Amino acid sequence: MKASAGIREPRKLTGKGQATRERILEQAAELIYTKGVHATNNEQLRRAAGVSGSQLNHYFPTKESLILAVIEWRAERVLSFHRSERFASFDSLDALQEWADFYVGFERAHQEGCTLGSLASEIIKTDLDVHDQLADAFDQWRDIFRNGLQRMQELGRISADADPTRLANLLLSAFQGGMLLSQVQRNAAPLRDALQAAIDYVQTFETALDCASPRLQ
Amino acid sequence: MKASAGIREPRKLTGKGQATRERILEQAAELIYTKGVHATNNEQLRRAAGVSGSQLNHYFPTKESLILAVIEWRAERVLSFHRSERFASFDSLDALQEWADFYVGFERAHQEGCTLGSLASEIIKTDLDVHDQLADAFDQWRDIFRNGLQRMQELGRISADADPTRLANLLLSAFQGGMLLSQVQRNAAPLRDALQAAIDYVQTFETALDCASPRLQ
Repeated sequence: MKASAGIREPRKLTGKGQATRERILEQAAELIYTKGVHATNNEQLRRAAGVSGSQLNHYFPTKESLILAVIEWRAERVLSFHRSERFASFDSLDALQEWADFYVGFERAHQEGCTLGSLASEIIKTDLDVHDQLADAFDQWRDIFRNGLQRMQELGRISADADPTRLANLLLSAFQGGMLLSQVQRNAAPLRDALQAAIDYVQTFETALDCASPRLQ
Repeated sequence: MKASAGIREPRKLTGKGQATRERILEQAAELIYTKGVHATNNEQLRRAAGVSGSQLNHYFPTKESLILAVIEWRAERVLSFHRSERFASFDSLDALQEWADFYVGFERAHQEGCTLGSLASEIIKTDLDVHDQLADAFDQWRDIFRNGLQRMQELGRISADADPTRLANLLLSAFQGGMLLSQVQRNAAPLRDALQAAIDYVQTFETALDCASPRLQ
């Protein structure tokens, strides 16, 4: 079964159809984020989105098609946010700090976790055929950090010794793991610590502060 | 409802009763690790453990009581493993490296994730009253790393500048997040990168290599 099977592509819908589909998706994403995938049912979704059972079935004929569309919807938002001007393509330590500060200060994240990561964790062991779509979303997310770190290297802001792929995996792992620990502990401390330590590690590669840098010798 | 409500304490059981309870728990933990909480039902568990419905109900009268006992069972094993001689109380960088190498080489972990973290992620949004028990397990886990790092400081192996709590949160977050990303990506690379980067960061505090250390001035 292909990852996109069962999803009715928005481009084939009328403007009104697209708006209805979007409203269903938004409500589904919210219900799933708050209550989890397994506690979210069609009846709740119908009421939240204000649609009939046949409308729901028209846009999302199966649970898998709905979950795939929610993953796509969540991934698009997370990736767009990370690509926004606010984070300047993550080409500086300040941008990384801005990012960490945002999530550490975003209270709902400590209650419900990462919008995409918490969903992934909930469904990764199920029979739903969502693996490729999740892998693609997380690959793109990691690439945003890696590209930023590579740019920092090109600009001479961090040394050539830094491994952008490894650091990108550290940043994204610290984020996902910190989110889980903060959810469990019900406060921001684990996330704050993990992100700050990861960024402090990136800073050890900063050329101006690098004690081994030829510039300072 | 208290965290222990519904669990029949092993100490009140006969030897045979304890063995039956342990067998059920072991099979429940395995089914949940492989298939997830929501796809595991009483019928599968009965067959896997070779017990009757009334036996299952005797030891675990509710799903919540079973899940709480599985968390306790998983936590006990994870914590015991981390406290084993193999890791020498995590009082050296070699011990941290041994730990990372073990999990990076443990193939099942990249398929199914962390035995405790994947379970926590699956149930953290449900109505099950398991929050305190999960928080306690992760607190103990983090303390193992923190105590090891504090001991490293006392032994002069890492500098006084290191923050053991922050580093412990980084190590545990990198582990949990790396596990999730490796599950999604279906290979060990994200976990390997995240753990290695976290350990390399701890190493930047190593006194003999610390360029700011008074010993080298």
